[in-house]
Amino acid sequence: MSETRTADPIGVIGLGSMGGGIALSLLRAGHKVYGCDLNPENLKNFTDAGGVDAPSPAALATECDLIFVVVVNAAQTEAVLFGENGAVEAMRSDSVIVSCATTSAEFAQSLETRLAEHQILMLDAPISGGKAKAHSGDLTVMSSGAARAYDKADAALEAVAETVYRLGDAAGKGSAMKTVNQLLAGVHIAAAAEAMSLGIKSGLEPDAIYDVITNSAGCSWMFENRVPRILSGDYTPTSMVKIFTKDLGIVLDVGKNLPLGLPLSAAAHQMFISAEGMGLGEDDDSAVIKAYQATGGFDLPEKKG
Amino acid sequence: MSETRTADPIGVIGLGSMGGGIALSLLRAGHKVYGCDLNPENLKNFTDAGGVDAPSPAALATECDLIFVVVVNAAQTEAVLFGENGAVEAMRSDSVIVSCATTSAEFAQSLETRLAEHQILMLDAPISGGKAKAHSGDLTVMSSGAARAYDKADAALEAVAETVYRLGDAAGKGSAMKTVNQLLAGVHIAAAAEAMSLGIKSGLEPDAIYDVITNSAGCSWMFENRVPRILSGDYTPTSMVKIFTKDLGIVLDVGKNLPLGLPLSAAAHQMFISAEGMGLGEDDDSAVIKAYQATGGFDLPEKKG
Repeated sequence: MSETRTADPIGVIGLGSMGGGIALSLLRAGHKVYGCDLNPENLKNFTDAGGVDAPSPAALATECDLIFVVVVNAAQTEAVLFGENGAVEAMRSDSVIVSCATTSAEFAQSLETRLAEHQILMLDAPISGGKAKAHSGDLTVMSSGAARAYDKADAALEAVAETVYRLGDAAGKGSAMKTVNQLLAGVHIAAAAEAMSLGIKSGLEPDAIYDVITNSAGCSWMFENRVPRILSGDYTPTSMVKIFTKDLGIVLDVGKNLPLGLPLSAAAHQMFISAEGMGLGEDDDSAVIKAYQATGGFDLPEKKG
Repeated sequence: MSETRTADPIGVIGLGSMGGGIALSLLRAGHKVYGCDLNPENLKNFTDAGGVDAPSPAALATECDLIFVVVVNAAQTEAVLFGENGAVEAMRSDSVIVSCATTSAEFAQSLETRLAEHQILMLDAPISGGKAKAHSGDLTVMSSGAARAYDKADAALEAVAETVYRLGDAAGKGSAMKTVNQLLAGVHIAAAAEAMSLGIKSGLEPDAIYDVITNSAGCSWMFENRVPRILSGDYTPTSMVKIFTKDLGIVLDVGKNLPLGLPLSAAAHQMFISAEGMGLGEDDDSAVIKAYQATGGFDLPEKKG
């Protein structure tokens, strides 16, 4: 007989590619999981895997004292917690919100303060790793928060993450670190597109560029991960252009408020905005190369088959 | 008795950190090596290791039918080959120039044509890997050129490089690939500085940023390699700021001539220029972070001891 963890039910608000993966990892670890999402397909995948459908964040919060909020941004986090049928009104004292959206550190800090007024604890816990790692329980969590919040969330975090960085005892540092990571990720994706554009327009074979650069000092995690999508001509989204329009927007807002000039981030942001302007917002983020192609006039590899 | 290769003597013009390492690797492989350099210290290191001092490129060329030119840029390559006491006037038919400087593909192509008028073969062979790999014989060579040139240079290339990419049968593609690599390398160094600046000004511990990012999707070869210099506060040059002012200048010239807009490269170039404006041109290229600090007003780790 295999051992399963007996834990209080855990809630997951937002069952998209990241939240859905987190819910799955929790179910696999033997937790009882309540979930809610506006998208029926996301909900069906979740209930098929053994999750319990909750009709609203408030309904979910009546069952769960530990809730992962895995939505896209600060506005959605705000809505599912404090909006109509939001979770906060139904949560008990000393329960814990694990806030996973990419937001500014300032928003995370203010959220912690407002939740504390309701005697709710918070972990500032943005996640990284993409859909595949969300589903396999191998996410990276860049987190900060009170020790009491970690005490209640530790077992669940272990089920969803390969690595949990603890960066401080209050909200803010988790989100600050995620912002630094997204700066680099966004700049590196745009730089990969810029470099591939230069190489292709210079007459180099796209496959040869990939081969040489992945073995040279010019490589980045993003170059290695994203350029194969350009080589295959398949821009089916794994992570979308519009995510980086959003995340580099957060990076630049944070910079403006510090204030700190971030010229590379600004240039990269413009390239994602241009790609979105071409109607590519929901294509894979590697499609930012088409914003270079639009003015550069070179051929990109076409999709096979 | 250990086996030593009997080869025609090989010439190395330019015995700085890269050329000096190449000469050393050739000596270690049992070749007889002639070298020349204007810097007496470089020359002494070379002769101490068993190399033979040549008073000029022309003098060196009377002895050697295979010559590595390991100078900084196109202008120096031009000078040592075609200037006063340049190598070309003294070279025999069918001898080979291995041109290692970072230049535009256009310059490399024109150099091949001009050398051919003197019945001299050429490999367009920019190198990558830095001083340590130059000295250990583990460089990466991004090369292109005629098969006959490779035939004569192969044994020597094997002695100096871990990997020799052959990208085509004429000059141009080697330099085009190096240009793509330098675009990424320069953008990634500046992005690493921009991200560390954002993180430090946001209140994150510099060491924690390095720890998290090197395990996340935001990592690059350059982030991993250069940020430790920022953390130690030691900007003793391994590769200098002014090298990237130069190399991103080549990237942007190539882009302008194609023409292809390269907004991230342009932004990164400005940061290196700003650092050079602060008098940091001969500091390590990671000192580009001081151009962020100059306006951002945050503290950087100080040198220990």
